[in-house]
Amino acid sequence: MAPLRKVNLAEKLSSFEEAFGPRIIGRYNGDKIQVTKVRGSFIWHAHQDTDDLILVLDGKLVVETREGIVELGPGELVVVPAGVEHRTKADPEAHIFGVEPAGTLNTGDSGQDPAPEVEI
Amino acid sequence: MAPLRKVNLAEKLSSFEEAFGPRIIGRYNGDKIQVTKVRGSFIWHAHQDTDDLILVLDGKLVVETREGIVELGPGELVVVPAGVEHRTKADPEAHIFGVEPAGTLNTGDSGQDPAPEVEI
Repeated sequence: MAPLRKVNLAEKLSSFEEAFGPRIIGRYNGDKIQVTKVRGSFIWHAHQDTDDLILVLDGKLVVETREGIVELGPGELVVVPAGVEHRTKADPEAHIFGVEPAGTLNTGDSGQDPAPEVEI
Repeated sequence: MAPLRKVNLAEKLSSFEEAFGPRIIGRYNGDKIQVTKVRGSFIWHAHQDTDDLILVLDGKLVVETREGIVELGPGELVVVPAGVEHRTKADPEAHIFGVEPAGTLNTGDSGQDPAPEVEI
């Protein structure tokens, strides 16, 4: 096999500017390992078929459900269970790490156009 | 549903001292979300049925395969593919984050006794 490939999250994040455009930086059992920049508010959506693991790397992130909000800083995570409507917000910007099944749409079931799956 | 539960990785890591004893801090699609302290060298092992996602949170970690080594610092990750023999080493200590299927043994196929699955 090939040697292991080290991935530096900050380097990957510095290579793009787009908000709400996840970048795939690796694969775990076929799932996408991603980093995403959040700026301002995202739309309400749910993922019917997968939990949503959100780990904040940098900045402050608000994750809102119909039950309330949690505020996350660097080194803090939440798991939004499958089927739970949520939205994320950052002012001005947060960087997040996540893992989700291949094919998962970042806009979930909202009907909004999803971001393309981009591997970097 | 219940409100989301925020998990602070540093707080979780400060709650135990044991090396090579993963602590489960959440679940993602049934998989274990874990933090682990690495101190010194772990045994050679492979996970035949799952990739091994290793993200370093603190300290320096060496991940060795039969092909060579990678040295990781905070904010750097590797994915060790299923079936690939590897071992980790930290001098003196590193803290890591990972996701793996429930039931995965931290000692893989080595025949050594695995750490128990402990949720904190």
